[in-house]
Amino acid sequence: MNGSISFSHGGDIYSRKIIYDFSANINPLGMPEGVKKALINGFNDFEHYPDTECAKLRRAIAERDGAEYEKIVCGNGAADLIYRIVQAFRPQRALVCAPTFSEYERALISSGCEVARYYTNIKDNFSLRDDIIEFIDSSDIVFLCNPNNPVGNLIQTALLKKIIRKCAECGALLVIDECFIEFTGEKPLSPAELSGNVILLRAFTKIYAMPGLRLGYIICSQADTAKKIKYCGQCWSVSVPAQIAGVAALEEQGFIEQTVELIKKERGFLADSLKKSGFEVFDSKANFILFRCGLPLDRILLRKGIAIRDCFDYHGLSAGYFRIAVRNREENIILVNAINEAVLNG
Amino acid sequence: MNGSISFSHGGDIYSRKIIYDFSANINPLGMPEGVKKALINGFNDFEHYPDTECAKLRRAIAERDGAEYEKIVCGNGAADLIYRIVQAFRPQRALVCAPTFSEYERALISSGCEVARYYTNIKDNFSLRDDIIEFIDSSDIVFLCNPNNPVGNLIQTALLKKIIRKCAECGALLVIDECFIEFTGEKPLSPAELSGNVILLRAFTKIYAMPGLRLGYIICSQADTAKKIKYCGQCWSVSVPAQIAGVAALEEQGFIEQTVELIKKERGFLADSLKKSGFEVFDSKANFILFRCGLPLDRILLRKGIAIRDCFDYHGLSAGYFRIAVRNREENIILVNAINEAVLNG
Repeated sequence: MNGSISFSHGGDIYSRKIIYDFSANINPLGMPEGVKKALINGFNDFEHYPDTECAKLRRAIAERDGAEYEKIVCGNGAADLIYRIVQAFRPQRALVCAPTFSEYERALISSGCEVARYYTNIKDNFSLRDDIIEFIDSSDIVFLCNPNNPVGNLIQTALLKKIIRKCAECGALLVIDECFIEFTGEKPLSPAELSGNVILLRAFTKIYAMPGLRLGYIICSQADTAKKIKYCGQCWSVSVPAQIAGVAALEEQGFIEQTVELIKKERGFLADSLKKSGFEVFDSKANFILFRCGLPLDRILLRKGIAIRDCFDYHGLSAGYFRIAVRNREENIILVNAINEAVLNG
Repeated sequence: MNGSISFSHGGDIYSRKIIYDFSANINPLGMPEGVKKALINGFNDFEHYPDTECAKLRRAIAERDGAEYEKIVCGNGAADLIYRIVQAFRPQRALVCAPTFSEYERALISSGCEVARYYTNIKDNFSLRDDIIEFIDSSDIVFLCNPNNPVGNLIQTALLKKIIRKCAECGALLVIDECFIEFTGEKPLSPAELSGNVILLRAFTKIYAMPGLRLGYIICSQADTAKKIKYCGQCWSVSVPAQIAGVAALEEQGFIEQTVELIKKERGFLADSLKKSGFEVFDSKANFILFRCGLPLDRILLRKGIAIRDCFDYHGLSAGYFRIAVRNREENIILVNAINEAVLNG
């Protein structure tokens, strides 16, 4: 909570000279052409207030994700919804994992909540273990990230189901951040399967390469939860361009399949290259890779206009951990060559 | 706080068939061409995260408004900032006026704050009186709207200065919503003149006709206040299109002067017409007019695709009060004719 906030996430291309951004985990295919066209055609609508109900967009999400319309809430990016959830429920005690995306803890602390951290271990590839169940009892809210940022690993389905059951038993609100799930090619949780008070957090930001437009959404297992979060905060939080882009994105055919294929191939290429450079590389199913390296790689690469994410400030990590986004082959080769050069020069 | 929230403000063109929208107070000149061009040129930037610092935009605002960069915070529309202010300070007791814009009270109540209302009177054209000073002592936060929504009247400068002094004396945070000030042609408050802990709330939404893009900002008298509000909530709240549009809007030459001239002329035209129809019309310096009429005018006009704002739900008003936006002559004539017809048909 200080002036250096712009450096605590990837994607800051404004305060530094960046040519290749591997610090933000955005789809290397870029924004679909259909989305761009819809935005240009929708220009005149920018002069109107947004639909506070996001009706068209929520109907499209409901259909795509097999969710009930009333249980969907759209937000000004997934981060907006993280804060809304916390402000709507004002939990007293929260459980978050470490390492993970820092905004859960930031939102919780800003609301005066006590935060307990469940630390995963390097020897388990930073995966959740069964003993997380024991920590849920005393929590009002639990945040999970699946696949987890910055590691890219998925929670085992059997364990995830156990956690859902446990949260339902003890009345804890469970938030599962699935913002990167579409990059993995794995089937996300079905809203119909949920029990208790569960919130699935999803985003358009990363998969449709539109972080500048800000669009995320939640699917709640309970309609009351959705209502509470929707009415906590302003009613016009989702802009007209975001709503137009969201509707158009959901009309794309084959875009996600194409993305999954590209990411799988390029993730393998990058992971192999990093291993060849002698770095410890952690297993990822997502569009980013965490690895360990003794060099101050972020600063070395920045001199060449390449941004990567130094993960020193993640709880549970330390200096020497870096995260890179999986980009297209051309960019990935530039990164690999720059890293190899850094290694050679020691 | 229920499902009918989309009807509690003007500008809902989504759940009804609207051809002419007099319910939202948007500049009838529309979005400046320069803003549209900047958005089209900036399309590729939508694929990046927004600048969390809004640096370029804040520098432009600082120069235009004579404010210090560090004391400016941008938000996802003015409404976003109202909620952020309340969430950052968590006041216990608040003073709001009645009638006024409902989001202050909604934000305060959602944060658990006790709200006292200062009622203005119809016989004073709903203007603030000197005795408001007595109500400030027991308040942690005071919200003023200048010009006030839905009346359009300005607070007398001498009284405004007294209120600022009083808030400074008793340590109350004073929020002055100036979202419509540019339509009045009056000089807004100078940030340099402020004492105590004052927040000026301004917006691009109305004057630059970009409510769909969501852009508002605050100028704080104290840098610490700005910092506190900035770090309360997500860091990416202002989208890339909003930042691009804001910077381009501030480069416009003569747009505000042209707006003021048009509004003055058309406001006179509409007020005269309403008076001729036998309605009680309240003095406005803004781009909207409050009047009283015994007919269910909103429902009658809606049948012709014309939306006006039924003000029955404003505290301090009741059934029979309506607010209309000042539009261009062509649209204003359509409204006036429709009203005259409604009156004739009784």
